[in-house]
Amino acid sequence: MSQAHMELGPPPPLPEGALRVIPLGGLGAIGRNMTVFEYDGKLLIVDCGVLFPDVEQPGVDLILPDFAPILDRLGDVQAIVLTHGHEDHIGAVPYLLAHKPDIPLVGSEFTLALVEAKLAERRLDPYTLTVREGGIERLGPFECEFFAVNHSIPDALAVAIRTPAGLVLHTGDFKMDQVPLDGRITDLAGFARLGAEGVDLLLSDSTNAEVPGFVTPERDIGPVLSSIFGKASGRIIVASFASHVHRVQQVMDSAWEFERKVALIGRSMVRNMGIARDLGLLRIPDGLLVSLDEAARMPHDEIVFMSTGSQGEPMSALGRMSTGDHRHITITPGDTVVLASSLVPGNETSVYRVINQLSRAGATVVHKETAKVHVSGHAPAGELRYLLNVTRPSNLMPVHGEWRHLRAHAQLGIETGVAPDRVVLCEDGNVVDLVEGHARVVGHVKSRYVYVDGLAVGDVSESLLTERRILGDGGFISATVVIDSVTGKVVGEPNISAKGFSEDPDAFNPVIPLLTAALHRSAEDGITDPHQLQQVVRRTVGRWVNDAYRRRPMIVPTVVEV
Amino acid sequence: MSQAHMELGPPPPLPEGALRVIPLGGLGAIGRNMTVFEYDGKLLIVDCGVLFPDVEQPGVDLILPDFAPILDRLGDVQAIVLTHGHEDHIGAVPYLLAHKPDIPLVGSEFTLALVEAKLAERRLDPYTLTVREGGIERLGPFECEFFAVNHSIPDALAVAIRTPAGLVLHTGDFKMDQVPLDGRITDLAGFARLGAEGVDLLLSDSTNAEVPGFVTPERDIGPVLSSIFGKASGRIIVASFASHVHRVQQVMDSAWEFERKVALIGRSMVRNMGIARDLGLLRIPDGLLVSLDEAARMPHDEIVFMSTGSQGEPMSALGRMSTGDHRHITITPGDTVVLASSLVPGNETSVYRVINQLSRAGATVVHKETAKVHVSGHAPAGELRYLLNVTRPSNLMPVHGEWRHLRAHAQLGIETGVAPDRVVLCEDGNVVDLVEGHARVVGHVKSRYVYVDGLAVGDVSESLLTERRILGDGGFISATVVIDSVTGKVVGEPNISAKGFSEDPDAFNPVIPLLTAALHRSAEDGITDPHQLQQVVRRTVGRWVNDAYRRRPMIVPTVVEV
Repeated sequence: MSQAHMELGPPPPLPEGALRVIPLGGLGAIGRNMTVFEYDGKLLIVDCGVLFPDVEQPGVDLILPDFAPILDRLGDVQAIVLTHGHEDHIGAVPYLLAHKPDIPLVGSEFTLALVEAKLAERRLDPYTLTVREGGIERLGPFECEFFAVNHSIPDALAVAIRTPAGLVLHTGDFKMDQVPLDGRITDLAGFARLGAEGVDLLLSDSTNAEVPGFVTPERDIGPVLSSIFGKASGRIIVASFASHVHRVQQVMDSAWEFERKVALIGRSMVRNMGIARDLGLLRIPDGLLVSLDEAARMPHDEIVFMSTGSQGEPMSALGRMSTGDHRHITITPGDTVVLASSLVPGNETSVYRVINQLSRAGATVVHKETAKVHVSGHAPAGELRYLLNVTRPSNLMPVHGEWRHLRAHAQLGIETGVAPDRVVLCEDGNVVDLVEGHARVVGHVKSRYVYVDGLAVGDVSESLLTERRILGDGGFISATVVIDSVTGKVVGEPNISAKGFSEDPDAFNPVIPLLTAALHRSAEDGITDPHQLQQVVRRTVGRWVNDAYRRRPMIVPTVVEV
Repeated sequence: MSQAHMELGPPPPLPEGALRVIPLGGLGAIGRNMTVFEYDGKLLIVDCGVLFPDVEQPGVDLILPDFAPILDRLGDVQAIVLTHGHEDHIGAVPYLLAHKPDIPLVGSEFTLALVEAKLAERRLDPYTLTVREGGIERLGPFECEFFAVNHSIPDALAVAIRTPAGLVLHTGDFKMDQVPLDGRITDLAGFARLGAEGVDLLLSDSTNAEVPGFVTPERDIGPVLSSIFGKASGRIIVASFASHVHRVQQVMDSAWEFERKVALIGRSMVRNMGIARDLGLLRIPDGLLVSLDEAARMPHDEIVFMSTGSQGEPMSALGRMSTGDHRHITITPGDTVVLASSLVPGNETSVYRVINQLSRAGATVVHKETAKVHVSGHAPAGELRYLLNVTRPSNLMPVHGEWRHLRAHAQLGIETGVAPDRVVLCEDGNVVDLVEGHARVVGHVKSRYVYVDGLAVGDVSESLLTERRILGDGGFISATVVIDSVTGKVVGEPNISAKGFSEDPDAFNPVIPLLTAALHRSAEDGITDPHQLQQVVRRTVGRWVNDAYRRRPMIVPTVVEV
């Protein structure tokens, strides 16, 4: 396996006739998917998504790809191809278009509808080019052919990119459900045609590469939902991702079967299902849908609420119901709640909290660990082998995964016949050149996590996050000392306060005399520099708190000159 | 179902001839298991464990049961019965014995050996009474009969407690592996005998009540390990819980099969396996074990490291290996790491981080999601039904679980014939009286989470944790104002600093004039009270940061009088 190393420098100039591939996101973590292709001075971007923060990024709203390596070349960008409408593939588009609003967006009808709705909220009206499976578009030097793929959102596409440097296939996110609800299966026959033509480089979804076997068909969830609906005597509340049209379809079908009405809850659920219906992707029988107000007045055994909040988000509809804070719905014994959704790693604590709160309020809660109410949208190892065997790529670059996923995918590639030195295991920012049919890591460009926190993009750094983690773990002790700016002498007593440390009002009584003595000694030593005095304060308080408490709160010394 | 409500007051006096049951921990979260039984003025405690904190309890080391309701009655405690040696059942013993060191500890040989090792570290030498399955001990008015149960640690016991009020069975933690490695199966026949006698109240392990079916036998892991060992060309590092003797046994057996030596890593692993060997619970072939120093010098294909750190603990042996910080072992391509362990909810982020770091360093990592290298220690629904059907309890009190588990267990009870009004669904601190064969919640006693943070026990409160969460999410902005204690006038300029907020040195330039103006207005209004001035500072800075950043850092105003 060809694995990139940290010591890589900036990439050399791109050889003539070669294709450059720069993953700016999506490797090492699942999210902020973005890959830049370069040929003959022109750029093509595939996907532009966000990453959701975990406990290591406290207080952060979103994480973006680092656009820095292409910011001065946005004029060369021919288009942004969006493989599908999930946030980790489209969520950063508004932030990139903020730099240059006229970059064309290329994608399927549903994908573009979702991204346009998102951009409209920011009063951005993008240039778009709608494509569909079977279509071929020339975007500068990049000839792009689109293929249907099956995923947990409708209308997803893979894209084959032809340049004189060779044929690249980027699968986007996919699985190979052979009996999907919409009959739109992943175009393995099309991929076989590419394989016959010769795939020089395959970039393929690694999310489930560690998982053995095959995905259960989405339609197998229908009977499980019906069995749950058949037993439910009170209200039914189903939560799922707001873009999972087929899951919502099955909920609606089960509701129809049991003569219940459906009310949609959550802004994104209402918006996305409206779009899906308008595009003919969601079939809603006449009279099935009711408003939330109507639903709230109906008998409990005649209604299904289809809600957001499947990941335990406290401010979502389901999150509010679980804490008794929802305006329309108060959970009561007899209610059935179904989390027909994945459990995104990192969200376990939040999701189980919501489940426990709903259980405590008396609801019967069904989730993926207790019934087959969810199937993944990503191809596991068994399906990935099919893809590898029909495309027979000369070079494989696993994408869309943490290291464990990328490495497992690399192993599958080698198993199915990709030469080990043609498996390119990368991290974000690595620069891969495809030269004469051989893909190699040739350099590295800057690829920070760019944090969105409130209105600010990029002003939160890793060292600020470290400060937040220290504050979050131990709170802080603040010690303020006033010195006379003329004499350098301490005026009055040190002022000590703390947050997140102790509520005992006398907790700091023992340290005041220690601090006063230390400052006295400093004065005797002629130390009057505020910065040096800060160090004295920090050291004295730090030692005391370690001895007395064995804790490490942040020590914040302030020396004020008056 | 009889579900306790929040509005419960203190319990009434215990009627004569009745048994009182007070769960001080273990309900609503998995951990800090502790149940107090009271009869005729005497108390019996079953288990005394810790709960490990999650993200909602930042910086906390451990969470203890709240001993307050029994602190003034420790003289009445006849004994602490310990069902098995896991931390969530024995970890709080040192903290309780700190109040009264002579309370006798009752448990099996292995359980007591583990708790004694723990107490020895604190120079505590407890009174102990070793019991085994089949034994009967009279502990004050409580006649205790002990039964073998199979769990993920050897020598676990269930306890039947007889008083004139009736027969109570407390299962402890158990599952029903029918072919355990040590041949010591859960004594279903004994439980059937109790069922025939008449079980008035069953307290039973709810951990896996939501999970359908039955646990895979522990011994089925052996062939999986052997298959992994057979393929490994380099070093093998296996991580598991340091008390899981049978898992370690299987690792040793596989090592022996492939002619590899074994080195134990991690203080608790070395200590516990020493105890297990001394007690005949772990068979170690002569010459199998080598020291860490020897192992580090051996050829890679001749060694297995058996390590702690299966939950992603950064300071554990495996955690240090993953970051390249272990003194003896540097992970290299060709190494195989096996996480032969559960993934405790809440630890996912840490565990996946360790797996990714190991993968990145070149190791092949096998874990429970990629191979059958772990089985649970707790009975799932299928097995719980067996227990319910042989014991036929008059009253069921699900214990050892979050709300979702307790409720699922309650449902299993009702399914198998327990009258719905005899299923007692409780939370910590509820007081349950068994009167004339009927168990009912009659009141509530205080049951806080008692936090251990460094050397302090109980001085961290919920509001301190809220402060830590605010600080951890947004950092703080501190504004110090000096006023003349005589005139009340502001001296000099306000001093603004921040942590975890922004690294821009000019970030606060815009707020200084706002603050100066606000303080000027206050002075004009004659406000000189430091507390009122603090409010002015807080409000001014808070408004500014909300408008300019849409963030909510903690605002820390300090007014110093000189």
